[in-house]
Parts: sequence; C-alpha cells; structure tokens
Amino acid sequence: MAAWLLGIKTLKIQPYILPSLGPHDVKVRIKAVGICGSDVHHFKTMRCANFIVKKPMVIGHECAGIIEEVGSEVKNLVVGDRVALEPGISCNRCSLCRNGQYNLCREMKFFGSPPTNGSLANQVVHPSNLCFKLPDNVSLEEGAMCEPLSVGIHACRRANVGPETNVLIMGSGPIGLVTMLAARAFGAPRIVLVDVDDQRLAIAKDLGADDIIRVSTNIQDLDEEVAKIQSTMVTGVDVSLDCVGFNKTMSTALNATRAGGKVCLVGLAQSEMTVPLTPAAAREVDIVGIFRYRNTWPLCLEFLRSGKIDVKPLITHRFTFSQKDVEEAFETSARGGNAIKVMFNL
Amino acid sequence: MAAWLLGIKTLKIQPYILPSLGPHDVKVRIKAVGICGSDVHHFKTMRCANFIVKKPMVIGHECAGIIEEVGSEVKNLVVGDRVALEPGISCNRCSLCRNGQYNLCREMKFFGSPPTNGSLANQVVHPSNLCFKLPDNVSLEEGAMCEPLSVGIHACRRANVGPETNVLIMGSGPIGLVTMLAARAFGAPRIVLVDVDDQRLAIAKDLGADDIIRVSTNIQDLDEEVAKIQSTMVTGVDVSLDCVGFNKTMSTALNATRAGGKVCLVGLAQSEMTVPLTPAAAREVDIVGIFRYRNTWPLCLEFLRSGKIDVKPLITHRFTFSQKDVEEAFETSARGGNAIKVMFNL
Amino acid sequence: MAAWLLGIKTLKIQPYILPSLGPHDVKVRIKAVGICGSDVHHFKTMRCANFIVKKPMVIGHECAGIIEEVGSEVKNLVVGDRVALEPGISCNRCSLCRNGQYNLCREMKFFGSPPTNGSLANQVVHPSNLCFKLPDNVSLEEGAMCEPLSVGIHACRRANVGPETNVLIMGSGPIGLVTMLAARAFGAPRIVLVDVDDQRLAIAKDLGADDIIRVSTNIQDLDEEVAKIQSTMVTGVDVSLDCVGFNKTMSTALNATRAGGKVCLVGLAQSEMTVPLTPAAAREVDIVGIFRYRNTWPLCLEFLRSGKIDVKPLITHRFTFSQKDVEEAFETSARGGNAIKVMFNL
Amino acid sequence: MAAWLLGIKTLKIQPYILPSLGPHDVKVRIKAVGICGSDVHHFKTMRCANFIVKKPMVIGHECAGIIEEVGSEVKNLVVGDRVALEPGISCNRCSLCRNGQYNLCREMKFFGSPPTNGSLANQVVHPSNLCFKLPDNVSLEEGAMCEPLSVGIHACRRANVGPETNVLIMGSGPIGLVTMLAARAFGAPRIVLVDVDDQRLAIAKDLGADDIIRVSTNIQDLDEEVAKIQSTMVTGVDVSLDCVGFNKTMSTALNATRAGGKVCLVGLAQSEMTVPLTPAAAREVDIVGIFRYRNTWPLCLEFLRSGKIDVKPLITHRFTFSQKDVEEAFETSARGGNAIKVMFNL
Repeated sequence: MAAWLLGIKTLKIQPYILPSLGPHDVKVRIKAVGICGSDVHHFKTMRCANFIVKKPMVIGHECAGIIEEVGSEVKNLVVGDRVALEPGISCNRCSLCRNGQYNLCREMKFFGSPPTNGSLANQVVHPSNLCFKLPDNVSLEEGAMCEPLSVGIHACRRANVGPETNVLIMGSGPIGLVTMLAARAFGAPRIVLVDVDDQRLAIAKDLGADDIIRVSTNIQDLDEEVAKIQSTMVTGVDVSLDCVGFNKTMSTALNATRAGGKVCLVGLAQSEMTVPLTPAAAREVDIVGIFRYRNTWPLCLEFLRSGKIDVKPLITHRFTFSQKDVEEAFETSARGGNAIKVMFNL
Repeated sequence: MAAWLLGIKTLKIQPYILPSLGPHDVKVRIKAVGICGSDVHHFKTMRCANFIVKKPMVIGHECAGIIEEVGSEVKNLVVGDRVALEPGISCNRCSLCRNGQYNLCREMKFFGSPPTNGSLANQVVHPSNLCFKLPDNVSLEEGAMCEPLSVGIHACRRANVGPETNVLIMGSGPIGLVTMLAARAFGAPRIVLVDVDDQRLAIAKDLGADDIIRVSTNIQDLDEEVAKIQSTMVTGVDVSLDCVGFNKTMSTALNATRAGGKVCLVGLAQSEMTVPLTPAAAREVDIVGIFRYRNTWPLCLEFLRSGKIDVKPLITHRFTFSQKDVEEAFETSARGGNAIKVMFNL
Repeated sequence: MAAWLLGIKTLKIQPYILPSLGPHDVKVRIKAVGICGSDVHHFKTMRCANFIVKKPMVIGHECAGIIEEVGSEVKNLVVGDRVALEPGISCNRCSLCRNGQYNLCREMKFFGSPPTNGSLANQVVHPSNLCFKLPDNVSLEEGAMCEPLSVGIHACRRANVGPETNVLIMGSGPIGLVTMLAARAFGAPRIVLVDVDDQRLAIAKDLGADDIIRVSTNIQDLDEEVAKIQSTMVTGVDVSLDCVGFNKTMSTALNATRAGGKVCLVGLAQSEMTVPLTPAAAREVDIVGIFRYRNTWPLCLEFLRSGKIDVKPLITHRFTFSQKDVEEAFETSARGGNAIKVMFNL
Repeated sequence: MAAWLLGIKTLKIQPYILPSLGPHDVKVRIKAVGICGSDVHHFKTMRCANFIVKKPMVIGHECAGIIEEVGSEVKNLVVGDRVALEPGISCNRCSLCRNGQYNLCREMKFFGSPPTNGSLANQVVHPSNLCFKLPDNVSLEEGAMCEPLSVGIHACRRANVGPETNVLIMGSGPIGLVTMLAARAFGAPRIVLVDVDDQRLAIAKDLGADDIIRVSTNIQDLDEEVAKIQSTMVTGVDVSLDCVGFNKTMSTALNATRAGGKVCLVGLAQSEMTVPLTPAAAREVDIVGIFRYRNTWPLCLEFLRSGKIDVKPLITHRFTFSQKDVEEAFETSARGGNAIKVMFNL
C-alpha cells in the first residue's frame, strides 16, 4: 500500500494503514487526484485556518477511482465501478445533519483536513453513499473535478442562480471559473467576469463569459468600475459571486448588485473585511456564504454527462503519482499563472 | 387647513395645499403622529442619506386618523372609520412592485421623505388601500405605532424568526424594542438583548427580554462578550438582529450566531463597516438587510388586536399639535434618554 | 378602426371604440395574434367557466405588435418598438397584487375574457408596463407565443423545475408542448412525455422529449403504465405536469411521482376528479395548480432570444385578418389534429 | 424483561429479547406509552396499509422513559435523564435522508410498524440522538404526547401556518385536536374547527378553537357549509388542515380555502378520493400531505415547556402495564367517544 504523506515540510510516498472495511463501506483504487489551493496551503504552512497539521498525514481530497471491494451491506455499487468521491463524512446524527445541512456538521471528517487522512493514495476506504458512479462518458479526471465544481454549484444554489439571473463573478482563478461554469449550467443568461489579470480574463472569455472586465487593485477606482460593470450588464446585476474575498472585490460586488439581489462570498482572501455593508443592507442585497457543499455530486455528474459543463479545459497540468513528480506538481499549482488545475494520474 | 411645515431650521404650523382626491383615495383627519429618528434627522440636518430637504415640506410618517371623505371607487372604507396609514406609495408598475417587493420600488413616494409631504398635518389625502381599519380595541396612537412596529416585523420576516428561533437583539433603542416585541410575537422562545446602557436594558427587561447583557463600546471585549451571549442563550443563537449598526454590534452579531443562522442588519449607524465577514460566510451565516417594510399593516393590527404585542408602554411622551409644543416635542425625541416614542395628539 | 368581434355565434370584423390613452398607456398596432383553446371555447359555447359572453366583444389574447403612440408618462417604450403584450390588467391595490400574486387578483381585466375586449384587433390600448420590447432576433409571431409559453413557464416555476428535476409530462397538446419546452429551458435533464396519440407523440419527440410513451384511456392499464413510465425515467419522477386533467392522467401523475416530488395540474379537462389523493399525500407528493401566470414575459423573451426555446415549429397554420379567413382559422384550431398553433398575421 | 406482545389477535405480556447496545445507543426504561389509532388498527386487523403483522411483535410508538444505560460514544445523555423518544430510525445514507427529508426514507425502521418491534415494553434500546431530554416541568406522559403532537406540528410546518394564517381544521378527533394546538402555537390568529359530532366540537372549543361548526355527512350540504365556514372566518381561510380524509371533508377544505392558500391532507380515511381538484388548482390552492414528521421533538418540548401547548387535557384514560388492563385499554381507545388519548403508565 502506497500513499502520499505530508511530512514536516516534505512530501513523501510511503505506506499507510487503511481503515477496515465496514458493512456500508467500499475500498476504492484511486486513479485521479486534483490539487486544491488548500492542499498547497497545508503543504506550505502546515495549517489551514484553525486546522493544524500535527503529524504526517495523507493529503488531497479531489479524487475519483475504481471500486475494488464492497462491504456486506453495499447495494449501489459493485467491484469495477468507476466513481467520484465526496470527501466529507458527517456524523448523520446531529440536528444540522438531520436537517439536510450536513456540510455544517461539527463532527465532519474530511479527506486531508487534519487530522483526517486524505485521498492522494493508491487506495482509500470510504462510505459507499459518498461514492457516485460515473456515467460512461465521464472520465476519472472529470470525476475528480466534481469536488471543485461542487463549490461553484453550492454557491449558485445558495445565491439562487437560475435562468433569470444575470451574474457578476469577481475573480477568474480556478474557483471563479468553476463557479462561472456552474452559473451557466444553472441557466444564467448573462455572466460578466472581473479580474485584475488579462491572461486569466482571456481564459474566462474562452470558457464562456459573456463579457470580461479588467479592474485595478486600487480602491479609488471602485465607483468607476462598478459603473462599468453595471453598464456592461445592461439589465442589472441580480447575483454577484465574489470568488476572491478582498475588501475591494466584495465592495464591488455589494455596490454593483441591484436592490433585492444577492451576493455570495466564496473566496476567503481576507478574514476581517471593510465594506459598504449598510447601503447594501438598505437595498435588501442579501449576503450568503458557503462552507464546502452538500448534495452536489449527482448534479455535477449530470452536468458533465449532458455536456452542460465541460471541465476538461480546466485541467492544464498532469503528473504521475511518483516521488519525483510530487513536489513539482505542488510547486506548479502554487505558482498559479497558466496552471488552473493540476491533476495526478495514479 | 393647518399643517406642520419644516422650514429652514424652524418648524412652523401653516397652511398647505392638499392634493385632490382621486377615485381610489381617501381624505383622513390625522389624530396621532409619532416622531421617528429620521424626522429628527431631517429637522436637524435638512437631509437623510441622499434625500435632501430643499424647500419647506410637511414632515412625519407614523400616523393614524379618521376617514373624512372617500373617492368614488373606494369600497373598503367609509367616513368615520379609524385607520392606520402605511406611508409609502409605490408605482405598482415596475418589476419589483409586480413581484411583491414594492418597498424597493425606485419611484416610491414616502410621507416626509423629500420632496414628498408627510403626515404631521390635520389632513392628508392617501390611497385607500394604504389605510387599514383599526380593530375596535386598538387606539389611534397604537395605530400610529404600526409604522415603527412594521420595521421590526419586516426584520423578523426577513430573518425567518419563528417558534424555533432563539434571537439576539443588539440595541434597546426604539427600533431594538419594537423588533424585540415583534420577535416575541413571531414566537421566538428566547430573546437576549444587548446594550451599553443599563437604563435601556432595564426597559427591555420590563418589556419582555428573557435576558439582558450590558456590553462596552470597546472592541477588545468582543470575544468575551460573544462568549457571554452564547452561554446566556444556552442552545445557540439562531438569528441576530443588529438594531444599532456599528462595527462592534455587527461583529458581535456575526460571531455570536450559530452556523447556518442569520443576521439581520436593521440599524444604520455606520455606512462602511469593518467586520469579520469571511468567518461568518464560511459558517453559512446569512446577512440580510431591510428597507422599511412591505405588507405589514394587517399583521401589526392583528398583533395589537390580539394583545400579542402591546406598544402602549413605548409611548413615553405626548404633545399637542400646537406651535408651542412643536420644538419641545422634537427636542425631547432628539434627547433620547427615557424618551422612547414621542407622540402628537391632533 | 377595425376589430374582430364575436357576435352571436358569428365572427365579424367591424369597428369598435378604442379606450382613451392614459398617461401610462401605449397604443399598439397588433401584428400577430394566436388562437387559444379558450378563444375557440368562447366562440363555440359563448362562455368559458363562469365567464359568459353577453354582448359582442373582441376576442383573442395571444398577441404582439408595434407601438403607435405613447402616453405622457411612458418612459420604457417609443413609437416603433416591437412588443409582446401581457394580456391581464390587475388592480395593483389588493393584498394579492401587493404580494406579487397579481394573477390571482379578483379584479383582473383580461383580454378577451368577458366582458373585457381582447386583442384580435388592429389596435389596442394597453398599460406600457405590460408591453415588453422584443429582442431584435425575435419575430412578432414569436412574441405572440409568449402567452401560451407563459403557461408552461409558470407551471415549471410552481413545480420548481430545474437542472435536477426529471419531468413527466402528461399530454402533448399545445400546452403539453410549451410546458415541455419550458421544462427543458429550466434545465430538466430528462423529460418523458405521455399521450394517447402517436402523431402527437411524434411531434413531442421531434421537439425534444427524451422519451415518449403511448398510453390508453383505460384506467385498468394504470399500474402497468406507471411502471413503464418509472422504468423509462430510471432515476425517479421528480415532477409531473398534467397538461390534460382527466382522472386517468392525474392518477398516473400522482402514482408515478417519487416521494417528496410535485405534481402540477395544468390541464382542466375535468372539474371533479377521482384520484388516489391519499397515497400521494402520504408520500408527501405536493399538488400545485396554476392560474395563468405572473411575471413571465421577460423570461419568455430571454428564452426566445437565447434560442433556449424555439417556438416557431409550434406555429403550424397562418391566416390573414380578413372576414373570409376568420371562421376557417377558428375551425382549423378547433379541429386540432396537426394544428398546434393557428396564428393571424395582421 | 417484560414486554407487551401482539400475538394472533391476543395481547400478551411476555419476555422479548432486547437488541444489543451500540456505541451511540441508549437503553431506556419506558414509563409512559400512548395508544394510537394505528396501534388499534394493527391489533384489530393485523395490518396497517401495506404493513402486515406476520409474527408476534411489540406494538406501540408514543413513549417516554428514563435512561438506564448509555453507549460508549453517547455524550448528550446520562443515566437518569428523562427522555421522549422519536420512534423512527432512518438509514441516514440515502439522498432523502441527506437532504433532510428522513421521514421519507425507504429503509425507515419505525417502532411497532411490522416487522420492527415497538415501545410498549419495559425497556427499549434506541439511538441516543432520537431521545430528547425532557425539560424539568414536562412530565413523562407529556413526553409520550410528543409523538401525536409531532403530526400536528409537521402538518402546520408543511402548510406554513404562522401568525397571519387563518386556519380551518376538519375533524376534532385526536389528530384534529393536536393539529389545532399546534396551529395555535405557530401563531394562527383564528382557528375554526368543523366536525359532525357535538361532543367532540365542545372539546375543541374548550381546548381553544375560536369557532366550531357542526356539519353533516351529506355531500349535498357542501356549498352551504362552505359558505358558513367562510362567513365565520370573515377574512378568508388561508390554510385548511383536513384531519379526517373523506371526500366531503376534503371537498370542503378545497372549496373553502382562499386563492393562493394551502390544504394539508392529514387524515387518511379514504384512499381514492373524488374531489373538486381542478377548481382548487385553478385558484392556486396547493395541496400538501404529510408522512409522519421530521425534526419535531425539540419544538414539541419547547411548546410544552413554555406552556404554549398543554397536552394534559388530551390524556383522558390511564391504565397500568398489566395483563388485565391491556385489552381494556385498547378497547377503550377503539371505542373513541370521550376517549381522546389512552395512556399506559409503566
């Protein structure tokens, strides 16, 4: 059994012990794992928010693989099935779980969130109801992309994006892009994407943004940029999705959104924010946030199956699961630039 | 015809011209008018937000009276009916009006919001569907209280307050108090009210708060105060209603509210706010705001009729509609202190 | 001024008097009018439900035209604009209107619903906010199709059809077909359409049904047909839209829908129905109905503009607005068969 | 270990084997068990709907007791705690459970629903998260009443009963009465209760109905009775809760409810129903049903703690858990009449 362990500032492939297979569990041979910004963060800083890496642990949580063994009570899957894995195991007993908000469960065990081992490993054991069979025309790599795509889908659901919602997206990083694809799939008729980087904006345009707007990082330009966004959208910004999370991006989102609209804060760049909250409140612009996602895999797979979303162009770099590729893969992801999604093929 | 006109920094009772009576309008003899903070603001600064007083105008918008004349098409009211008046006339044609969000209508004409004349006058002409007949056991003064009470009701509706919602209220000024009464009437099982002033807190306790907590204005005390609020609430703060609107009150509300809960920003003390927005978003604590209210009068009157809400203790000072009382009434309201609601009896 | 009048069992083009142009009204030269089943019903029986034709009246309500004159306060339209007309004028004062449910307004004046004159006329006068400017790539005929399409859109909204909703549609008449197009535009991944007629089913298949199922009118076949529908849908029927309204179609819809799903009753063939209501209730299958529509025109036009919906194949027959064509047009519509939508070009 | 077993048409107290205690389970000494109509049905007919009693089994599901032992992972309860038990154990894995609709779970194991043993036993083993600690001022008998009360609460939630909802309740049997108490606790300002029996109506009036109306079982009287209901309610029936489920009760509910209102079908007397479904659909009167309840125990206990609901008057007959009392208790419940709730004290 081989696995990628996060050591003390080193990444090393070495054996780890799989948990035993419960009656409702499956054993999955992992075939594709994407690198997420939080993985890089764990690697670089040994922490993510309040979650601190205290001992070596398997990292990674965007994954897909093939069923190798099923528990005695598993009925929905058989050996050989190709599956995408939802990475979080909630308690299923607390009032939030019982109310359908399991993503907010305080006892969540989530792949690669310390101290829970992740999925950048040859094999994992996971609950069968968190493994979703891939349609025939969806690849394992696309299956692994369900995880970041779920963030975009959950954001769109919370902001009620639909066929009548003109959408502003702040930021064309990986999360901005999956959120844009999700908004389109939910039917958004018009999507304007805003960023500070021309290269990223070009990618967003290629992937389907109706309009792109280059902005500065200077807060002085706020009013002018808001006016430009509004005139570009023409009929009013119904929903803004801030996939960055700086004072300026959030201020832009709040000011640009029409009375009665919604702003979803997806990016988490800053913790404390200084923003024009009161004028937004007085126009009944609701602010919603997201924590991961819930019940998104079936919809992801339907969007991928039907072609309403194509995530393949987002996978820009591929590496093997070998000691020599490991650090380069993480460094590639950390550099950003033209790297959107870095994917391991195992 | 006599009316109270706001001149250039003086208040003077003098005649004004009533609009003509349309087929769906009624003429109302005004009998009770309350003074709102925004009226004081208009008087003191000749503006409120972007609305600037440019020429003499009748002020006031919290009112009730008796029908004196009805238009040719009016069917719901007859001369002699005692009514409470909803002060805003929306266009009824735009998409927001057509969607039931008429309070966000951009063409709203609102009593006493420049340049629209208000209701501190002997008589007004108003659309009949904005005049709501008082139940027999509800006084004209209580009818005038429907306006501030509507703010609390709209806030509770937007935050989904109900029989399972433990509520934190920041601020025990007039709006904090009506919001508390509304939350109780919506069934909130437990309400904790927070303020910096012991006298106001005592009033809140008298009016039905389950618990009151005195806090400082020092941001350094935030964590400790949040912990105290949470331990006082015991089972989690489901909804917080910030009826003040300072950095500290909003930060307290955001941090104190449980994952998946809601914060409603009602008070508007600061425009730009510096608050821990991202951690709240990442716990899916939604932030909603309010602009006035919509469709609240029937519910106000039902709450008053049934005794679920008693607004009488809020009316602390009364004045006649005479030149000598005018300025004193406004100064009394402006001083605050033990003055909660200052009421004119005409 | 020429207009099509419904006389006593005859249809006759003759002058009628246009209402005067109010400040918020526009005068529209009508260019396209579709015939609806209810128009045929009015013509054949001189009534529709409780609405009885007591004197000659203009019929028709599916229409589009060109602005010829605008009232003094009209800002959203200019002479020459091509517009689709929403046919119902609500009171905008009652509590239903004020709550956004204006389609349920008891004082609604609706084109061609006795005693209100309709739109099969050279010119009409109509409120400007009920006239929606056509995008450049949407024809006047397509504009007239907004009306029947609105029925499908309102049904899909009430049933919450979206990208995760597998949809069963009972009936492939004109309303079944527009409802299918609407469900697709709302993102329904899988639509199964059921009818008794092979020719109609073939049309539905051509227009985009994923699967079609031919059923009998015999209630004995119910269980077998439900089983077939469920196996065809594979993953459960989330929403059923009964566009017929017979005991058998509704029973099929109720039994076929999964626990927690919804059934929308669109067709009104029978008034009193004998259906398995209790088992559906005990699976929490909600039943919703529709009365016309509300706030649908902007979305219709967006769907037509973007090509998400193509209504052109539904327009199967065209007639001129001349005395010799009139009766033939109505008879063609009444015969059904391969006539889906019969359209007048004026 | 003693338990009440349902034999072949006899009820006999005899030993049964308790399941083993899992890490998240508790062992509860049962102290109070109410008899439900479905228990009587099981006893009399050996079936309930599709659930057939094939071998002896413990019956009963309305219960409360005292914790005797806790599993190794249980943190929310300690030995000696008094608890009310939610009787259904859902799978917690399927998409309905994960979406918060666990009451619709197809793998539900429910106390006393064949073949799952019930709670009319000295001891049961149950998941700790389905055992809710009683407030100090709530008795064990009241705790057992949470189960029938949950039906009323779930019905009110599904029908959106709140402080603006005028409520019609059809039927003043045990479920009609708990539904009335729930509607009142949710804030319904006005409740009219309808039944065929004067004695039951008198009980409803005593327990808080604003008005009671005696009706016949004759369908010919429908229109007259609907008119009487509407005039008694004065301002429109917003929600009707049919706690009987006959053609006539449901027809009354559908016809009496205002446009845009809701009807909740709670009672299940008839399976196939003949009702005026189409006119209700065309007034957008939604029909919702219920299957048991979800997430209701905390709210029940809050209503009992605060005194918003008093269930004590519903407990009309008490029996000991002894062989001699058993059959008499069930016969008392089966007779109805003045017996509302028959309770065992163990």
